[in-house]
Order: sequence, then structure tokens, then C-alpha cells
Amino acid sequence: MILITGASSGLGAELAKQYSADSQPLFLTGRSEDKLAAVAAKCKSYSRSEVSQQTCQLHNADAVASLLDVLPSSPKLVIHCAGSGYFGELAKQESDAINVLIENNLTSSIMLVKDLVQRYQDEAVTVAVVMSTAAQVAKAGESTYCAVKWAIRGFIESVRLELKGKPMKLVAVYPGGMATEFWQTSGSNMNTASFMTAAEAASMLKQALTATEHGYVSDITINRS
Amino acid sequence: MILITGASSGLGAELAKQYSADSQPLFLTGRSEDKLAAVAAKCKSYSRSEVSQQTCQLHNADAVASLLDVLPSSPKLVIHCAGSGYFGELAKQESDAINVLIENNLTSSIMLVKDLVQRYQDEAVTVAVVMSTAAQVAKAGESTYCAVKWAIRGFIESVRLELKGKPMKLVAVYPGGMATEFWQTSGSNMNTASFMTAAEAASMLKQALTATEHGYVSDITINRS
Amino acid sequence: MILITGASSGLGAELAKQYSADSQPLFLTGRSEDKLAAVAAKCKSYSRSEVSQQTCQLHNADAVASLLDVLPSSPKLVIHCAGSGYFGELAKQESDAINVLIENNLTSSIMLVKDLVQRYQDEAVTVAVVMSTAAQVAKAGESTYCAVKWAIRGFIESVRLELKGKPMKLVAVYPGGMATEFWQTSGSNMNTASFMTAAEAASMLKQALTATEHGYVSDITINRS
Amino acid sequence: MILITGASSGLGAELAKQYSADSQPLFLTGRSEDKLAAVAAKCKSYSRSEVSQQTCQLHNADAVASLLDVLPSSPKLVIHCAGSGYFGELAKQESDAINVLIENNLTSSIMLVKDLVQRYQDEAVTVAVVMSTAAQVAKAGESTYCAVKWAIRGFIESVRLELKGKPMKLVAVYPGGMATEFWQTSGSNMNTASFMTAAEAASMLKQALTATEHGYVSDITINRS
Repeated sequence: MILITGASSGLGAELAKQYSADSQPLFLTGRSEDKLAAVAAKCKSYSRSEVSQQTCQLHNADAVASLLDVLPSSPKLVIHCAGSGYFGELAKQESDAINVLIENNLTSSIMLVKDLVQRYQDEAVTVAVVMSTAAQVAKAGESTYCAVKWAIRGFIESVRLELKGKPMKLVAVYPGGMATEFWQTSGSNMNTASFMTAAEAASMLKQALTATEHGYVSDITINRS
Repeated sequence: MILITGASSGLGAELAKQYSADSQPLFLTGRSEDKLAAVAAKCKSYSRSEVSQQTCQLHNADAVASLLDVLPSSPKLVIHCAGSGYFGELAKQESDAINVLIENNLTSSIMLVKDLVQRYQDEAVTVAVVMSTAAQVAKAGESTYCAVKWAIRGFIESVRLELKGKPMKLVAVYPGGMATEFWQTSGSNMNTASFMTAAEAASMLKQALTATEHGYVSDITINRS
Repeated sequence: MILITGASSGLGAELAKQYSADSQPLFLTGRSEDKLAAVAAKCKSYSRSEVSQQTCQLHNADAVASLLDVLPSSPKLVIHCAGSGYFGELAKQESDAINVLIENNLTSSIMLVKDLVQRYQDEAVTVAVVMSTAAQVAKAGESTYCAVKWAIRGFIESVRLELKGKPMKLVAVYPGGMATEFWQTSGSNMNTASFMTAAEAASMLKQALTATEHGYVSDITINRS
Repeated sequence: MILITGASSGLGAELAKQYSADSQPLFLTGRSEDKLAAVAAKCKSYSRSEVSQQTCQLHNADAVASLLDVLPSSPKLVIHCAGSGYFGELAKQESDAINVLIENNLTSSIMLVKDLVQRYQDEAVTVAVVMSTAAQVAKAGESTYCAVKWAIRGFIESVRLELKGKPMKLVAVYPGGMATEFWQTSGSNMNTASFMTAAEAASMLKQALTATEHGYVSDITINRS
């Protein structure tokens, strides 16, 4: 079974559709009950396998535990797409929005990965954590967004060291320049016409998430051409 | 005037003592009223200049604003030493302690720097942000600590790009292997006998924080030898 | 047509075999005429398409030009696998071997990529440059090897900035822990029993080298599990 | 005694003047006999201590050995400033100039540091290696320059790991935006009017190169303001 977070829109929703087209059993989570139900309904229409969904506030450790408690089995793959954006010159950013940004990105990622490690570190579970190319460089106008993305990168690279020799694997994914609702709702007026669609990013990520007996693709950066 | 955060102990307290020995006017802040008062009293005993102090919860934007409102003048130098540690294997970390770690390090740094930029970006104010070598590498047993330190690094490097051409300057400071109370109170049982003392780190940082007409030392890493 | 450098052994030879099994037209190059001929013969036995080969000393700009002059058409994909290793404590390394290491890795990569950019920057040519995880971290016992690999990384990331908006694309590939003859001939006595085989790395790389209309996988790290 | 490479011009020459003004015994080296003699003569006019000089082609391991053989004693500090620049779009760079760039920067640094480590690793010798901010980021128009500077960084960080626990220390220095003859002779038409002078960079570096019993400033970035 594949667990996808942030599945109610964007890359998460596209991954859900593409994996369901392969009839992979899915468990979807997101914040919005209605949007999540709509994505799940579409997936069920493609798939000969089980598609389940449940909302979750991932920054809340108890909510994460409740989510993982209801999974019917250990996921073979978790794709953590949940996250949100907030942009603009630092001097004009709002404190409340910064706190939400930290919760939605950093706190959520830590609470989810922590619980996954506690439960599954000795099983062959792959956890792909979707960040952004903003985790790799500094950007004017994205100071707090870069902050939370750099944080997740440092976190994932550290946890990997703790998991050395264990069957659980962490894959770091860095998409850049993807056109999703995200940009419209986050205060950026970037022109996204030449950006990749979420469907394009999903298809590349799905293909690149590959492994063999002794190895795996551990880090994937996807850029617009 | 020099504003020092985290001045009630460790590197911040040592910097306060060493700058007061030079009779630099100081404004000290920290979380513990008693410890802050004790450090300030010691500084006043050395200094022929003003030494003021006020406690502040830096992760709270309103508290930061109240602190900066009472400063008698624009600081020529801010040394942001405040922060806390939390260590150990991820699977054994507590959610509450992780939330405190994020607040004390990441949220505090963002709220402080945001307000400093709003007030002083067009003045010759130098803001030295003390992180850790944990901002530069991944470490097993320090996953959440690395997360918040990488975050501050990505944040500072991004804000720097926004300040390009302005007189305000950000200096990034990365100390590694310093022996302070920090280690005793943070769940690590590292043997710190050969570590630098906070006084040593303070004296090196004070000396390396230098500038000329057209340039400045923008990044300083201090390591034990 | 796909141009593969370093095709006489290791990852390059495996990629040649796997692409020829798909009947992709290939042009193979390497330093050893005999080994290259043997790999090409095997590829021809699988493939319904053209397989050509020619030796080349890639650190020599004129030799690179001669190689590219004889290509029957623009390659759609170049996979630059050529390189060599040299390991051990710095104090015990030999100057001559260091000079060879620089030539085989850094000089070769610059001369090849320079000529490819001159010829094909305005065509849809993808150039995948295979480095190593030694391009991403510092390692004791691998100081000069890290030097040349960091160099290629900084070079490729810079050239990418020059190619922004052009159809030519550079893909950075970082394999870690692969078991090839390389280790036996380079002075390392690392136990490579649990390492990926070159065939495994080749199959993952071949799969992850993917693109869509507006995007492509630009950076791929492959690690042993 | 302080050994300074690249002492015939730029930062190296300025460091020589400033240390000789403190009457530190100096040993200067560079490629140009005449310019080196002129700098040494100026230094001797300030200093009450010994100032010696000898030309050296640092990319040649034997020449490095000859240089170090004539030092009257172990240097307490080596400041390696030697290097050269070469800029411009990759497609327009000349192969010969690239080979010279690699020799003057990467090969020289490896051969010098290798011999210093062989001789002095068990002594309290500090080796400050001056690179550039081009060692920290990728830059269009500086692909081969970034290559050699990234190489030196990866090399130094790796050798540091080999020296762990030894008294020899490596300090990494990254100056950015310094106005020296360098720019005029390297094919760049950058306007350097607001850049730091080499004298400014030298004074900041001299001050920041500090150490205490248990610690030292290990990495210093100097930027124009």
C-alpha cells in the first residue's frame, strides 16, 4: 500500500491518480475533507485496488499516530507531499502566516517521519519526502520558505544517518518550478506558464523512484526545462 | 550600543562580559530574569558605560517589538546568541520538546530578524546570528537540532539577498564544540572536556567580527582545535 | 544516438549493454581499444541498431573534437561515465598519480562538456555527467578524489546557469558505493561485497533519466541500500 | 615565521606588508622574481625582522619541496594566496588557458598542502588557504574558475578530516569582490569600483585569523559591503 500525504491537490493528487491508474492500493491524506474525497473518488474510478482516505493535521503528533493506527498494513512506500508556501520580502511577512508555514512544513515533516521511524524502521518501507529546490539554495523573497525547506533537508539527511543499515529508506525529492494552485494561493505572482504541470512532475517522480537489490535512487531533483 | 540576545548564559553572557570590559554600552536580553540580572550586574561592575537588560520571549513577535521599542538608540551591533538544544535518536524524541526547540531557535530567529530588518535595514546595523556547525552538516542524534539550524542558515542567506546594497549587514556565525551548560541541560552526554569554553569562543568571535569601508567578515566558523 | 564515455568498463559498459538491449543506436568511447571493442561486440550481439566505437583521450581538446567530428548525427543523449579513482591518505599520495587523476576526471569533463556546448547548445541534447557521492561530501582518505569530483560539480552547476533557456540540458548523476574494477585498481581495499553492481546502478540511472514536455530529472543520487 | 604564497601582488602582497609592519619574520614566494623582490624590499623597509623570498612554481611538487627545504624553521603560519583567474562563457574559453587555470589553482594547492602535511602535520602549524566565494556557489561566466575553487574546498575539507586530532590546522578563507590586478588580467570587465581593496581584505583576514587554547577560527568569508 502507498500512503500519500498532501493528496488533496497538486503533486500529491496527481501521484494518487497515476498510482491508481496502475491499480496500486492507496491510502490518501490531506487537510481538506472535500477535496480529499474528490481525489479519492477519481482514483477509485481508475483502480481495481483499494483506495482509502482520512484527513490529518500532520503537525499534531497525536493526529499522525491516529492516522498511522488505521492503516491496514505497513505501507511499502510513503510519499510525503504535504506542505504550503508563503512568499514575499521578509519585512512584509506576517507573524501568523510564518507560524503556519513552520507548522505545515517543518513540524508536520518531523512529526510524520518520527512516527514512521518508530513504527517501521525495521521494515522495507521507503519514505519519499517532497521538498523543493528552495531547500538547496537561498532566494530573495522566499526567506521563510527557504528556512523551512532547508530545515527538512537537514532533518532528512540526519535521520538517514540514524537509519544506516536499516531496511527503511528515506528518499529526498526536490521539485522546482511546478505550476500548481500553490502559487496562486501563496502571495506570489510568478508567471507559471512555462512551468511543469503537477502531472508532469508526478510522472517523472513515479518513474525515478526506483530501487534494486543493493541500491536505490536516494535523491531526485526535478526542474523545468 | 550592542544588543545581545541569549545573554543570561553561555556565549551570550561571555560576550556581554568581554564587551563591557571594553566599556561598550550594552543592552542584554534573555529568558531568565534572575540570570540576566546577575550577568548585567557583573557587566556593570566592569564597564564605564550603560548596561541595560530586559527579558524577552523572542519567538513572540509582539514581545520582540516591545523589546526593540525600549532600546535607547539603534544598535550598531546585534549579536543573536539565543537558542536551545535538544538531542537524541529521533525515535526517542518527545513532540513537546521538538516544538519548544523550533520556537527557541527558528521562530525566535525569524521574529527577531524580521523586526530588525523592518526597523533598521537602511542603517549601518550589523546583525550577527550565532548558529552552530550543526547548520552545515547532517548529524545522527541531532536530526531536529540540525533541522532548526539549517533553517536559520537558509533564512539568513536568503534575507542577505534581500538586503543587497543596503547598509544593514548579516553575519553568520557557526561555533562547533563549545562547552556550555547547554550540553548538560539538553540530554546529551557528550564529554566536553576538550571543548572550547564559551569565553574562548566569545573572544574569537569578538575579534573576527570586523569590517572596513568596503567589506566585512560575513561568515565565521569557530571550531575546537 | 546515445554517446557513452568510459564505455569500456564499469557503469559505462553496463549502460551500453542495457541501451543496446533496447536497440538504441550507440556510439561508445573509452581509453582501451581492446576492452572497448569487446563491449561493442557484445552490444552488437543484442542490438538491431548501429553500435560504433572509437577510443579517445578526453583530456585532450583536439582528441575530443576528432571524436565528435565523426559522430554520424547529434546525439540525443550523452552519458559521460569516464573517470578514474585514486585514494589514500594525502601524505602518501604520489604527485604523478594526482596529475593523472586531475586529467582523467576534471580536465576530461571540462574539455568534453566545452565541445558539446559549442556544438549542441541550441539542440535538444541531454548530457548526463556521472560523478560520485564524493562530489557532495568531504572524505578522509579521498582528498584528491573529492577535489576533482567537487570541481566537476561546481563546473556543471555553473554551465547550467549559462545554458538557462537553451534546449541542451545537463543532468548531474551521483552514484555512491558501486562495486566495479575501479576499486581494485585504485589503491583502495574497501570491501565491496554489499555494494551495488554496476548493472544495478545502470538500470536505475537508465530509468531515472526521464523528461517531460516542460521538465526533466536534473540531479540523481544513487546509493547502496 | 610566516610563509606567504602569491606574495608578489594582490592579497598576498598586502598581507606581507601588514605582517611586516608588525615585524613578523616572513618568507615570501610568488611566480615573478621582479615583483616578489619589490614587495620584499618594501616589507624590509617596515620590519625589524627577517624578510626572505624565493620564487616557486607551486604546481611542481619538486619545486615545492625545494622551497620548503630552504625555510629556516617550521612556519607557524602559512597563508596560501597564490592562484589565478580565467573567466567568460564556457563555449569561448581556450583549452590552454583552462589547463593553466587548473595548474595555478588546483594542482598548486594540492602539491603545496601535501608537502606541508608531510612535513608539519605533527606541529602547531596553521595553513590558511585563500580561495574565493566562487568556491561556495555556481556562477555563469565562471564555470572553470568555480570548478577549481570548489575543488580546493572539497580537498581542504577532506584533508581536515585526515588531520583530526593533530596540531596542524587548516583554515579556509573565502574572499568575494576584491579589486586586484587579477580582474584586469583575467578577461573579466567587471566594474570593481565598489569592491574591497586587497589592503582591506588583508587587514580583515589578519584580524580574523585567531585562535585560543582549545579553538580556532576555521572558516572565514569576507565580502564587500
